[in-house]
Amino acid sequence: MAIAHPPFIGSEQATVEAALMVSTPSPSRPPVILTQDELKKVAAYKAVEFVESGMILGLGTGSTAKHAVERIGELLKQGILKNIIGIPTSKMTHEQALSLGIPLSDLDTHPVVDLAIDGADEVDPYMNLVKGRGGSLLREKMIEGACKKFIVIVDESKLVKHLGGSGLAMPVEIVPFCWKFTAQKLKLLFKDAGCVAMLRTFSETGEPFVTDNGNYIIDLYFKKDIGDLKAASDAILRLTGVVEHGMFLGMATTLIVAGELGVTMKNK
Amino acid sequence: MAIAHPPFIGSEQATVEAALMVSTPSPSRPPVILTQDELKKVAAYKAVEFVESGMILGLGTGSTAKHAVERIGELLKQGILKNIIGIPTSKMTHEQALSLGIPLSDLDTHPVVDLAIDGADEVDPYMNLVKGRGGSLLREKMIEGACKKFIVIVDESKLVKHLGGSGLAMPVEIVPFCWKFTAQKLKLLFKDAGCVAMLRTFSETGEPFVTDNGNYIIDLYFKKDIGDLKAASDAILRLTGVVEHGMFLGMATTLIVAGELGVTMKNK
Repeated sequence: MAIAHPPFIGSEQATVEAALMVSTPSPSRPPVILTQDELKKVAAYKAVEFVESGMILGLGTGSTAKHAVERIGELLKQGILKNIIGIPTSKMTHEQALSLGIPLSDLDTHPVVDLAIDGADEVDPYMNLVKGRGGSLLREKMIEGACKKFIVIVDESKLVKHLGGSGLAMPVEIVPFCWKFTAQKLKLLFKDAGCVAMLRTFSETGEPFVTDNGNYIIDLYFKKDIGDLKAASDAILRLTGVVEHGMFLGMATTLIVAGELGVTMKNK
Repeated sequence: MAIAHPPFIGSEQATVEAALMVSTPSPSRPPVILTQDELKKVAAYKAVEFVESGMILGLGTGSTAKHAVERIGELLKQGILKNIIGIPTSKMTHEQALSLGIPLSDLDTHPVVDLAIDGADEVDPYMNLVKGRGGSLLREKMIEGACKKFIVIVDESKLVKHLGGSGLAMPVEIVPFCWKFTAQKLKLLFKDAGCVAMLRTFSETGEPFVTDNGNYIIDLYFKKDIGDLKAASDAILRLTGVVEHGMFLGMATTLIVAGELGVTMKNK
């Protein structure tokens, strides 16, 4: 199914090229020490190998996904990929894809998407995800939920034993109306897990971060495992004022992890 | 618990006064034929009898609730009610209450509300409601969900055997992003009930109706009973892009119905 991409061209690709080769280790090759961003790039490039000409593609958002979008633009420019239509998951990705000359559309016009590639903030052993630290969880979930195949690309630092386990935020998008009230309800919902609920703000101004949909983000932090994720998902969605949350349960079909020891891939 | 309100003052109240007396029929009194708006007013005035000084009040939205808000303003002006704080369920009610001199606040400041009074578009035999034909379902649900007591006021035309049974709309508030896609998902969810999903628009311009939260409304019409309402609620809320729906399940604590034969009251 995967197209045969040509070898990486130009010296700027040398590190990533070396890293991809680490996945088939050679004793004669010295170990390659990669930065976190290089690892993200390695995973992204691997995922783009699954892109075929003619596909409708969900284009992810964030520091890992941007490498995939860049690579897709590059392969289109080189004529290796043809007739791709991208469905961006955020205004930011929309701008990036436009600047790379990737033809764009939306779910209203293309309700079925062949493949989406996106990063994640956390991945548990069952390939459940936390996403949305970049703030695009709603559009990502809508588009990636409409995909036949959803490849998640991460560096190994994103792997957790249970969602919330990184100690970083699990975001919930809520309407601005009475946001304090909703934040308090969210906190109470997970009081047994020692939940702290914080409005996401810009550190410079203290102003609330506003999503592409005009909403606010409440970042939830848990001290303990929240347990049954489906039950947690329903409980969050039942709160009036909640628009969407950042748990992506049972959606990923393939996981690509780039780590110091190479690239690993796992299918559902 | 209910305060003793004085008799209605002024001739404009004569019909409503008469109607309220119909609830304790007198054979010597000729039957009073009321318009639908007068019936709404009868139910609204009856509900306001439960308002006590010092209460935090949820103020409903729509053609029935506006009579209750008006009456509360009147009783405040007359000094019969004191220290009321209103929590309006829409920008429209906010304006109305302001113009009547009702002191206002919000859920962030007053997360517990003593009593809310609001109309409904449909009421089933279990006091489940459809609300939101006025477009304020989200704020109404948030505020009325925070109430110790929620009195629903309707004229008898709103009583249905099952929700959706009036053949009128069950509204769902959704984010504008890819609204056609979400509308299609909603329609498919209830395909067995012969669901039709329509974007709410202004008939003059064809422009989408926009809620106080900047969202769109999809009006769902059902040919058949949709069955298990809790299951339907969860299924709707699980759709990415859905913000809230107009089914208010298990929320009403008292129902006041004004009909040609008088006012009836039912408690949970």
